[in-house]
Amino acid sequence: MQMNLSCPMPALDFDVITLGHGSGGTLMQKLLDSGVFSLLANPILDQRHDGAIIPWQGPLAFSTDSYVVSPQFFPGGNIGDLAVNGTVNDLAMCGAVPKYLSLSFILEEGLQMAEFWEIMTTIKAACVRAGIEVVTGDTKVVERGKGDKIFINTSGIGTLHPKAAVSLQNIRPGDVVLLSNAIAAHGMAIMSVRKELAFESEIRSDTRSLSGVIQKLIDRFGAQIHFLRDPTRGGVASVLNEIATDARVGIDIRQKDIPVEEAVASACEVLGLDPLYVANEGVFIAVVAEAIAQAAVDLLRAESESAQAVAIGEVTSEHTGQVVLTSTIGGRRVVNRLAGEQLPRIC
Amino acid sequence: MQMNLSCPMPALDFDVITLGHGSGGTLMQKLLDSGVFSLLANPILDQRHDGAIIPWQGPLAFSTDSYVVSPQFFPGGNIGDLAVNGTVNDLAMCGAVPKYLSLSFILEEGLQMAEFWEIMTTIKAACVRAGIEVVTGDTKVVERGKGDKIFINTSGIGTLHPKAAVSLQNIRPGDVVLLSNAIAAHGMAIMSVRKELAFESEIRSDTRSLSGVIQKLIDRFGAQIHFLRDPTRGGVASVLNEIATDARVGIDIRQKDIPVEEAVASACEVLGLDPLYVANEGVFIAVVAEAIAQAAVDLLRAESESAQAVAIGEVTSEHTGQVVLTSTIGGRRVVNRLAGEQLPRIC
Repeated sequence: MQMNLSCPMPALDFDVITLGHGSGGTLMQKLLDSGVFSLLANPILDQRHDGAIIPWQGPLAFSTDSYVVSPQFFPGGNIGDLAVNGTVNDLAMCGAVPKYLSLSFILEEGLQMAEFWEIMTTIKAACVRAGIEVVTGDTKVVERGKGDKIFINTSGIGTLHPKAAVSLQNIRPGDVVLLSNAIAAHGMAIMSVRKELAFESEIRSDTRSLSGVIQKLIDRFGAQIHFLRDPTRGGVASVLNEIATDARVGIDIRQKDIPVEEAVASACEVLGLDPLYVANEGVFIAVVAEAIAQAAVDLLRAESESAQAVAIGEVTSEHTGQVVLTSTIGGRRVVNRLAGEQLPRIC
Repeated sequence: MQMNLSCPMPALDFDVITLGHGSGGTLMQKLLDSGVFSLLANPILDQRHDGAIIPWQGPLAFSTDSYVVSPQFFPGGNIGDLAVNGTVNDLAMCGAVPKYLSLSFILEEGLQMAEFWEIMTTIKAACVRAGIEVVTGDTKVVERGKGDKIFINTSGIGTLHPKAAVSLQNIRPGDVVLLSNAIAAHGMAIMSVRKELAFESEIRSDTRSLSGVIQKLIDRFGAQIHFLRDPTRGGVASVLNEIATDARVGIDIRQKDIPVEEAVASACEVLGLDPLYVANEGVFIAVVAEAIAQAAVDLLRAESESAQAVAIGEVTSEHTGQVVLTSTIGGRRVVNRLAGEQLPRIC
């Protein structure tokens, strides 16, 4: 999946980040001129003003996220593509087509330039894949021990899809709850590195842009896609609970229909984690009109990003505010919200 | 200057931030519901989607900054109003009217809720003063020793002022360089706290929104305002050097015309710092057509934010790329760029 960008690390007369690289002086200029600007080049960024001026028409979606994932490098990605895909997906879940991104770094003194450059090239590749451009940015450096290598904030803006009507208010009893792919891969990929667990097969993060497949879904089904959300921190269980509470409906789901890759399921078992609460970075939940549910699943299954798409349950007028799971052996239980922290710094 | 917001800290069953507050679960919900959402309430934020949907027409300006200032509280402000004003000012310097803000926190485990709440109310007050609304946000928590109390990213969008034509390309030899107020207050306010220096009179940061005065300037003079920039990190010297390099012109400035408050000048002397390189958070540089320079100074002086506005020099076709200062005793010297770090974590 890695894009082959011919961007070798530029020759530099420094190999670690120092406080001076965040000063606004020539050192910072040197860092940016070393390759960052040319890597991300586009006519808007090239203006190099404090802000970007962008032609625009019609309603926009605006979203922000700061990424503090630890470790910064993990199977399937690093904090760079996570930061791009995460904000791209937040925009897509609004029914928007992501267009422009801001990129802001908080670097810890001592960060290796080789690591920074690997993250930069991953950012670029993720932007290309998602069809989005970085148009403005910022770099700060903090002293050793006051940060953790690198934190990234991305904020994004997108144009609202003209056929989109994604809103909690559109959710109705009888709607079908779709899940786009197998769950819990991102969280378990991070855990496998953190705990140095050697599973039989490597678990890779599912970080990816969902913008393409969401656009196809809305192109085809428009306002019949009632709601979209990607279950990142807190996993599928947390997002379904939020939907049930905020839309004042009940949600029934069937455990047997929720896909979990075997390696992921085993890892969850080893660590005593319920995959329903584990973070995803390349999966979405769609609440759709019953009439198009099967056609939507068929459309999703034809796309590589959502090849395991499945209907996992329904919206109901009963047990308002609660998510009820029918287990594989037929029992029913309430899926509670996560109280505190299951997996800190997962994104 | 402090706005009297009747927002007492909400009653909470926790008084420090824990990792669980960044988890996406009920603890995080409790933190946000404790008062954050009601403090910042507006129809767009109240949707509580992952992104904000905003009606829009015409070109927009988009800017981002992460704030890591240390200490987080200082005379004249804290990291909260600094983060709002900083991004508001970046948008204003594009010739835009700031409209909406995103707000993203990276909190360190152990941060006192009382401090967080004081920062929140300061954010709210700064938003009201700048006429801007927070429409989307994010909260992450990192372990003790992996951050420093609180880092804030704000990204902002604004509408381009219809009469604005702010661009490096519009700078011409003969243009006049205006400075909106006395310099170096922010940097020295931070230094005074950091070094526990007791100066005769307290030095207060100049953090403030410049959006109002910039709008008046553009309303009146339109395209005759050729360029705007606020000299934050690296100070006036760094911004003038950037302008000289990027616009391929020379700049002459007169030391005697550059206002520095007496307490600030003394503090700079004590620490051996040149005020030209010290950060500002409420000052801007305007490069304007000669014909309107005096009228622009008059307009600025009538506003409290820019009461000490003054013409400090001219753009010249000589010594391209260089800033030359005529000292108070008549000597001329090149004002170089700052190499590395003068004052780390000033913003």
